[in-house]
Amino acid sequence: MSFHRQHLLGLAGLSAAEILDLLARADRFWDAAGSSSSQVDPVPGLSVANLILEPSTRTRCSFEIAEARLGIERVSLAESTALSLVKGETLLDTVRTLATMGVNVFIVRHPEVGAPAAIANGVPQIHVVNAGDGTGEHPTQGLLDLLVLRRRWGDLAGRRVLIVGDVTHSRVARSAYHGLITLRAEVVLCGPRRWLPAAAEYPRASLADDLDEALGVCDAVMALRVQRERLGEDEGVPDPATYRRRFGLTVERADRLASDFPVLHPGPFNRGVEIDGEVADGPRSLIWSQVRAGLAVRMAVLAALAEQRAAGSDRAG
Amino acid sequence: MSFHRQHLLGLAGLSAAEILDLLARADRFWDAAGSSSSQVDPVPGLSVANLILEPSTRTRCSFEIAEARLGIERVSLAESTALSLVKGETLLDTVRTLATMGVNVFIVRHPEVGAPAAIANGVPQIHVVNAGDGTGEHPTQGLLDLLVLRRRWGDLAGRRVLIVGDVTHSRVARSAYHGLITLRAEVVLCGPRRWLPAAAEYPRASLADDLDEALGVCDAVMALRVQRERLGEDEGVPDPATYRRRFGLTVERADRLASDFPVLHPGPFNRGVEIDGEVADGPRSLIWSQVRAGLAVRMAVLAALAEQRAAGSDRAG
Amino acid sequence: MSFHRQHLLGLAGLSAAEILDLLARADRFWDAAGSSSSQVDPVPGLSVANLILEPSTRTRCSFEIAEARLGIERVSLAESTALSLVKGETLLDTVRTLATMGVNVFIVRHPEVGAPAAIANGVPQIHVVNAGDGTGEHPTQGLLDLLVLRRRWGDLAGRRVLIVGDVTHSRVARSAYHGLITLRAEVVLCGPRRWLPAAAEYPRASLADDLDEALGVCDAVMALRVQRERLGEDEGVPDPATYRRRFGLTVERADRLASDFPVLHPGPFNRGVEIDGEVADGPRSLIWSQVRAGLAVRMAVLAALAEQRAAGSDRAG
Repeated sequence: MSFHRQHLLGLAGLSAAEILDLLARADRFWDAAGSSSSQVDPVPGLSVANLILEPSTRTRCSFEIAEARLGIERVSLAESTALSLVKGETLLDTVRTLATMGVNVFIVRHPEVGAPAAIANGVPQIHVVNAGDGTGEHPTQGLLDLLVLRRRWGDLAGRRVLIVGDVTHSRVARSAYHGLITLRAEVVLCGPRRWLPAAAEYPRASLADDLDEALGVCDAVMALRVQRERLGEDEGVPDPATYRRRFGLTVERADRLASDFPVLHPGPFNRGVEIDGEVADGPRSLIWSQVRAGLAVRMAVLAALAEQRAAGSDRAG
Repeated sequence: MSFHRQHLLGLAGLSAAEILDLLARADRFWDAAGSSSSQVDPVPGLSVANLILEPSTRTRCSFEIAEARLGIERVSLAESTALSLVKGETLLDTVRTLATMGVNVFIVRHPEVGAPAAIANGVPQIHVVNAGDGTGEHPTQGLLDLLVLRRRWGDLAGRRVLIVGDVTHSRVARSAYHGLITLRAEVVLCGPRRWLPAAAEYPRASLADDLDEALGVCDAVMALRVQRERLGEDEGVPDPATYRRRFGLTVERADRLASDFPVLHPGPFNRGVEIDGEVADGPRSLIWSQVRAGLAVRMAVLAALAEQRAAGSDRAG
Repeated sequence: MSFHRQHLLGLAGLSAAEILDLLARADRFWDAAGSSSSQVDPVPGLSVANLILEPSTRTRCSFEIAEARLGIERVSLAESTALSLVKGETLLDTVRTLATMGVNVFIVRHPEVGAPAAIANGVPQIHVVNAGDGTGEHPTQGLLDLLVLRRRWGDLAGRRVLIVGDVTHSRVARSAYHGLITLRAEVVLCGPRRWLPAAAEYPRASLADDLDEALGVCDAVMALRVQRERLGEDEGVPDPATYRRRFGLTVERADRLASDFPVLHPGPFNRGVEIDGEVADGPRSLIWSQVRAGLAVRMAVLAALAEQRAAGSDRAG
């Protein structure tokens, strides 16, 4: 069953078939995601507004390049606009206004969990793509993680992926978890106790205290970005040097892994904290593949939405 | 006589024929303004600079989408640039610089009355479109108000339009007034005394103290956006609750109007102050038509300027 | 020999043939730089990121218009992004990230000398164009200065160009110097002692104390932009009025020059300090030609890079 939802708000709730459809589409954009010279047919019928209401360089540029490379009309509202949104007009009124001008896809990054869903619920006949909502989800990030692992391994069933860091605050971890579980991979979570989630939130993940032990029984590792201001400040959270020693993907740790052991990180990274620069740039790193995969995934999502509109199909929401 | 002026600085001084020409053009863009899928021929020969030197989401996006949908080359200078303009270079030098690079249309929003006219006077061989200058004019807003009323009524002659709010500070009211009067409609102004203009400024309007009485003798109402910081602060201006009671388009008031009584508002609106949310979203509201009309009008103005340039016609300025 | 370097980091080190190739290309874009109506073939295969990490209106717009007019895919990171760059991610990681998405040309303006070169050295297979690095170089500015003088004079050999102002802090002066010397013109530097460079830095320039004497023996003059906050503050640097009297291109001074004596200024200018408004706008001024030349030069550089990529040629770096 191909992806035919009106919105992409998260990976939770998507079927394996829907996810695999998006990944297959992304695979077809792989060349185009790595080169502006690649021939891509323009995607007609979309008009995109990028509502990037939280600082973001990487995700914003990835979506903007996806739109440009697909020849899609676009308008961008950056974080500085957020203030005038708050002051002048509800976010929903802004979306309605743009929708009335024919904008039909809204890429939404927002500091609050649920903001993209609130827009999707509040304004009919538009498509909303969650580009990261607080500690909620970041579904195109989750898809890109799946894409690089599938390009490496093929089927993910039975593969075990270790996610290390501040899991509770991470929308990256949450989207990856839902996607991995749906594709029948296993997920192990590791990090300072304080940063590990309650079982109810990640019911099918197992927890690990010791990074080295966990690495020994997993097939890939994803380091989460650490917010430096939390280190040594949150109760029970170590200072940067201790964090690196216990939970960092250091050169020493990486050297003990198989030479093709996949190392992922959503970026941007704190070199020398959660990951050493040599590891990020090293042979095991899939980090740069992730960047390319991210662009391919975003092109795929936009193309899927355009196809839906062209088909005039009913939408399942 | 079709519109063939070099600039669109205000509706004051335009003939009925010129206004009707722009409205007829906008009507032809109605479909394209509501959907990015609509086929529109690209408009050649224009290069637009958006000088949006005052916070604006709605008007900026409307112009940018108009430019995108017409395939027009564009560059945008946002309000944050204003500081460097002030610091580094006169605004006229900036315009001259861009004009020297072939930019031939300047969309200008500026906090000072007359700034667009100063640019038009200071730099030859460009077109200036006033996108709102202080308490001056906002002609594309005035045109969009006319467009939705004409689409509802056909001829405006003899129709009576009530404008409610802070008329003295409103460029929206001023442009609407000039357009309505030129098309032989009547204008009634209502609001706190302090906010009603001297007769010399609006010589052909009548004034009303009581909103309910005025609604009884008018055919449409336009609520102006209230600047909340003025309420209860300006001498003689009531607090928000009193303002709503006396001058707000409340649900109760709207319910007493004919079911197709047109309600306009330029947006963004303060729901629950000058207009209730239920009225803005209700059956009498033309607010969302206004948004679409705004895009159609901006496309029309750009297309008219392009046609002028293509014809190489003399300009009447 | 045509220009076939991977990067354009400065004019120092370019051969006369390379410079002349770029100028010849720019000449072919002269019409297109002055009008958006001019037919220009789109330049395929490029994807540009504008990293404008220092306030700039003029140079940013010039590059953005060049890219738009050549139909090139682009993404822009403005100065406000600089903060999040500093905070979140090294600049090199940002560039690598964009390069991984197929961005292949980076236009870099940066407050630090050498930042563009560091990017060029740090990330393979991209092209870097220096759009001004601290007190380093600003090569497209240097090329545009050469272009307007060549369009006036033809060959520059033996022509003597006077540069007046804060030479030591000026990337504009440095690029102009290298370009002029390479094309066998002579360079005379004039300004407050404090602002004149050590001989080692400008080995082939001569220094002049007195502006009027120097004007008498030169063929053209380029006034540098004065940073007003330095005037009267830096030791040995006069206040604005004294500066204007001793080093300003005043109306009185200009009137003593030949009627076609070329007057250049990189803009934006402080009218009434380093140049009088009447001179900037007067018959000797090439300032507006410089603006157009700047756009032509930027189009030329982009077209040259595209041609290189199309040819798949080896790069000399």
